[in-house]
Formats: sequence, C-alpha cells, structure tokens
Amino acid sequence: MNAAAITEERPTAVASSLQDLETPCLVLDADRMARNVARLRARLAGLGVGLRPHLKTCKSVEVARQVMSSAEGPATVSTLKEAAHFAAAGVRDMIYAVGIAPAKLPQVLALRAQGVDLVVLLDTVAQAEAVAAASREAGAPIPALIEIDCDGHRSGVLPTDAERLVAIGRALENGAELRGVLTHAGGSYAARGAEALRQCAEDERRGVVDAATILRAAGLPCPVVSLGSTPTAHSATDLSGVTEVRAGVFVFFDLVMAGIGVCQIDDIALSVMATVIGHQREKGWILVDAGWMAMSQDRGTSKQAVSQGYGLVCDIEGQAWPDLILADANQEHGIITVRPGSGATLPDLAIGDRVRILPNHACATGAQHRSYQVVRGRSAAVEAEWPRFGGW
Amino acid sequence: MNAAAITEERPTAVASSLQDLETPCLVLDADRMARNVARLRARLAGLGVGLRPHLKTCKSVEVARQVMSSAEGPATVSTLKEAAHFAAAGVRDMIYAVGIAPAKLPQVLALRAQGVDLVVLLDTVAQAEAVAAASREAGAPIPALIEIDCDGHRSGVLPTDAERLVAIGRALENGAELRGVLTHAGGSYAARGAEALRQCAEDERRGVVDAATILRAAGLPCPVVSLGSTPTAHSATDLSGVTEVRAGVFVFFDLVMAGIGVCQIDDIALSVMATVIGHQREKGWILVDAGWMAMSQDRGTSKQAVSQGYGLVCDIEGQAWPDLILADANQEHGIITVRPGSGATLPDLAIGDRVRILPNHACATGAQHRSYQVVRGRSAAVEAEWPRFGGW
Repeated sequence: MNAAAITEERPTAVASSLQDLETPCLVLDADRMARNVARLRARLAGLGVGLRPHLKTCKSVEVARQVMSSAEGPATVSTLKEAAHFAAAGVRDMIYAVGIAPAKLPQVLALRAQGVDLVVLLDTVAQAEAVAAASREAGAPIPALIEIDCDGHRSGVLPTDAERLVAIGRALENGAELRGVLTHAGGSYAARGAEALRQCAEDERRGVVDAATILRAAGLPCPVVSLGSTPTAHSATDLSGVTEVRAGVFVFFDLVMAGIGVCQIDDIALSVMATVIGHQREKGWILVDAGWMAMSQDRGTSKQAVSQGYGLVCDIEGQAWPDLILADANQEHGIITVRPGSGATLPDLAIGDRVRILPNHACATGAQHRSYQVVRGRSAAVEAEWPRFGGW
Repeated sequence: MNAAAITEERPTAVASSLQDLETPCLVLDADRMARNVARLRARLAGLGVGLRPHLKTCKSVEVARQVMSSAEGPATVSTLKEAAHFAAAGVRDMIYAVGIAPAKLPQVLALRAQGVDLVVLLDTVAQAEAVAAASREAGAPIPALIEIDCDGHRSGVLPTDAERLVAIGRALENGAELRGVLTHAGGSYAARGAEALRQCAEDERRGVVDAATILRAAGLPCPVVSLGSTPTAHSATDLSGVTEVRAGVFVFFDLVMAGIGVCQIDDIALSVMATVIGHQREKGWILVDAGWMAMSQDRGTSKQAVSQGYGLVCDIEGQAWPDLILADANQEHGIITVRPGSGATLPDLAIGDRVRILPNHACATGAQHRSYQVVRGRSAAVEAEWPRFGGW
C-alpha cells in the first residue's frame, strides 16, 4: 500500500468535452449509474435486506459514495489496498471477501486499530487458528466470516459439512470473533434464463442459511448471513434468513450481464472512448487506438449466445450501432467489424472520429484505467474526472 | 499524461526477502533478463543490424536502461504516455509504433520541441496530410514512417500497393518528413516450427524492403527500414536491406514464446508471486491470492499445443513444478491444479505457502502491476523495487 497514492486520490474538476480528451479513456455515464444503483436498492428494500456493495468494481471513492448507503459503508472489498483506500476516505464497515492469508493479518489489525470494522473471510481451521492467534497476540479479536461453498465454483465449506463448520467456528472463538457466514453464487454467471437465475439465488440463500443454522445449533454465534452476486441479487424472490446482499458489477453493468439478462445494453454505464486510426477497407476493418490494454482481455460473452468480441461499439453519445463489435485486439490496436453473419453495415468513420466501446466485464475493463471521465446521458460535457486506484 | 506520475518514477532501495513481500506481486529475475537481452543482442550483431527495443513490455525506466543500447535509445513505444515517461528519463530516439491520430500531434510536437526525435507511424493519405499540415503550422517537420502490412494481421499498406505508398510519401513530403517504412510480423505468433518462423521472418523482410524500393524508385527518401517481432527477431537468417529490428517481449519471455519455441521455460524472467489461501482437496484444487487481476486474462497458450491455463506454477525459487497450472481465475482468486491427463502429483502446499506463476504473456501480466520486485536466480533476496507506469 502506498500512502502517496492514497493522498493523491481526489476528484479533479474539469471543464471539457469528450472531443477534447486523450484516447483511449474510460467514460462513465453518471445518469445510467444512478439508475442502476436506484434499481438494486429498490429491489432489496422490497425484500427487506440491506446492500453491502462490492467496491472492487469501481475502486473509486467518488463512485463508492454513490453506491454505499452511507459515507461509512457498509462495503465489500477484494484487496487490502481497497480496504486502506476506502478507510482513508472514511469507510468504517468492510468485509475483505477473499480468503485471508496469515501474513496479511498485521495489516488487518492496523486498519482495525484505526477504527475500521474490517472483517476477514476463511474456510479452513488453519486460517481460523492463525486469526485467533493473531487476535490473542494483539489483544484485539479479529472478526471473521466462514465462507460457504453454495455452488462448487470456487472456495468455501460445503453447507453440509457440519464438522468442519463447527471446528472453524470453535477455533475462531478461541481469541477471535465468529461474525457469521458468507457465500457468493459465482456459478450464476453461467445460468441462462430467469428461472435458472431464481434457482441459483435460492441455492445461494439455502446454502448460507443452512450453514448459519448448523453453527447456531452448535451454540456458536452467527449474526451475519451474507450472500450475493449481481445476477442473484437481481433474481432472488425470497431472502429469508439473510442479513445482507453483496453485489459489485450492478453499479455499471456490462455486456456479460446483458447477455445473462439482468440488464439492457442501454443500462451499461461504462465505456472506453477510442479514436479511429486506420482502415483495411477490403476486409471491412476499422482500426482504433483501443486494444486489449484499454479493454482488458475479458472475453466473457464468448461463452454466451452472442459473442461481443472485445466490446460493442457505440457512437460518441453512447448509442450502440447494431452488430458493430471490437472483433480483435492487440495491445494498443482494436479492429472494429460488423458481427459475422449479421448483414449489418459498417458505419462510415473517418480517421480521427471517436467511438465508445461497451465492455464485456466492467471490473476488468475499469482496472485498465486510472480515472473515470464522467458524463451524463448523451451530453458530451465532461463533468469531472474521478480517480481510480489499483494494485495490492 | 500526468507530470506527478513521471516525477514519482524512481527506483526504491529495499532490503527484504520474497517471504516478506505482500502478495500478489510481480517478480523479475534480473539474471534471466540479462541473459535474454544478451542473447538477442548477440544474434542481431551477427546479422549486422541494430536493436530498437519495444518498451511497451516493460514500461519501466530501469528495465529500459538494461535493454537499450544507450541511455538515449533507440527505442519503440506504443503510447504517448510511454514516450513522455521515457523522454523524461533521457531517451531521445523513439518510434511511436501505433497509427497516429491527428489529435495526438500537438503532444508529438511538444515532445519533439524538447529535443526528442519522436517518429510517428501511419498508413493513410489522410494521416499523412494531417501530419504535414501540423508540421507546416508548427514550422517543425514531423518525421513519419509508413506502416507496411507484411502478413495481413492488422494495419498497414500492402507492399504491392505502389500507388498508395507513393501518395502517402508525397503527402508527407509537403511539410513533414518521410523517414522510411516499418512492419511487424504479428502473424508470427501463430507460426509453428523453426522453418515456419524463418519464413515469417523472410516475408516480413521482403515486404518492408519491397516497400522501401518502391518509395526510392519514386524519388522519395527512405532511410529507415524497420521490422520486428520477438519470434522473427529470433528466427531471421538474413536481414539484407533492413536498418533496425524491433522486439519487446524477448526481454522477459513468457509461456507463449516458450510454446512457439523461441525460448525455454527457464528463460522466463517474469512471474507473479502468490500465497496459498485455501484448498478444495476432494477436487485437487489449491487456491491462491492471484487471480486474473494479477495474471491478466491473457490465455495465449490456449491456442497452442499445450495450454498453460492462466500460468505455470513454480516454487518460490522460480523452478516450475511439472504440469502444475493456474487452471482458473476470478478477480483475486486463482485455482491451481495439475494439468488434466498429465498424471502429475499436486504438491503439498499449506495455507500461507508461496508460489511463483509464469505468465502467458509478459506484456499483459506486467501491465497489471505497479512495480517489479527484482531478484537474481534462485535467491530470495529482493535487490530493488522498480516502478512501472501505465495509462495513456
């Protein structure tokens, strides 16, 4: 973590137009973002559960303040760098939602000593013993959630593995604090159709609630029952027994989420602006100065019904051309073509013309950039430049 | 471009061991790098041609100084941010090897006014006219190379298209400066076997030399005849008519280059160090804290004979385990498994143990990090931390 980088993070007032910016750059439509945030808030309010947004998507204090329910949180982070940045900006309630490595506990304790309620995640007795030992040594109990594996996609304890759950809980209670259980239905990204998504959401809920029941039956505390992913947060119809929902990409949405069906193309708030730098007319190619360095190499839609290549191409106002995609990319070159078989027409774009490209995966594309250029709707006026941070 | 970021760039003296570093982090074996640089230099010296290294791979002043033939260059860059950073570090001879957008010409002129011989690239009459107009307006001729398409993989003028070549050259000579021709055999990344690589190298040479011949026959100047890619630079046996070779990834090498056959696994100088954070023992999974954010999503070896997943796993000394790969990745989680069908044994790694993961594509993985942790060979001593920059 770099203290200099933290103090650098401040919004920059700008007075410019999209036409004046250097390309490639990351453009954020604040109107679309506000609509996306309001939509999930309203949905969860209807289900009676609070939102703990995942800030790994935005890595920006300004965006975080739009998406959190208060300036102090709650929030979810994926790195201790995020935890430190958001702590410096006043966030006081965070879950570090990646399994804890023992060597990271001194940083966790340092943030907690600053008044940040930073909670760690784990799924082994070895980690629980390390957290308890560090807590005892520091005289400061570190709160931990047990990760539950609701769909086999990654880490976590099976909700049926009562023995391991209780052993982890007891190891924590020897000096640390068992705060509860957490799961993430990462498998929902592969689900297709509203009914399959509702089933993912119910499997996610049932897994984490079952685990909580086991812990409580063993006399262990379990105040927090946390779940979430953008697809399941937008699909759940019952969240009984759940205390909070986590979601990240809902704030911007992206082409993968549109392909899953939880948003429309016109909801996607993030795009990369690029400039036309060439043509290979006989091949139907337009070359732009946004390659994989600007877009990331996430090809998430390649496994969906409609592959969007490296992104879907829009005009400078953010309106998508039918079937115009960034079909290929090198480090700083992108090749725009019409989608094969679509019969669409290549727009007549000249050297120097600008386009905006919607990303497959907002988390990955955002991470390639150092700031957001903030616009609203079809206006070309850039209201602000909001810094992003990266690293670990 | 950010002036603050430029002044920040300085080597940091450190006195630590790999065991003390936060993970994930980027580790550079300076011994392997030195060997890689010496190997290409010796090869090109034998062919009688100089090296103009592509600094998009390293984005680091310290690495650039190891790879350039002098502190002033020559060098190749892929963004104006790179040009500005390296200019601030004293580099005076650079080609910006991505087709120029007219809106970028004021920055080019500003760098040239500082005494940097920055050369632009183009492949259309429209760009040539824009460069000539900007040159006339500034009273300072901007030198430009014409990009030649030697293998159909991206941009450039076909070496048989004499009419377009001469039209671009004449448009430049109306106020700007025609410096020569440049090509890049990007298609060589898909070549398999020494003979196919030699053929790519010869096609690359023939294309750019033929274009130079056309320009000279039309009475136009063509002092520079530039070509290169790491595979062809290591495969060419004749570079008659060529004035310089460009290559980037040779400095670090990576799994894609090993798959092509231009290096061995033990030549790869770059790795990502990660910490074990969990197991799914019944599935044969080891979870680490390096996901696609640390590795990038480059899956370049997936199209080769041996797919390395998101990377090949080594011990902390940088020695690869047989057939142990990062098979899957989420943003901050990686899943290590043995390669399916290999019959290899999963090593016994405990929570907190550290591994190093070789990347598919050094340019892409490097770009996910803010610095290099510099080691030599199997030693765990970290000699230095060298900053990297990013952005545009």
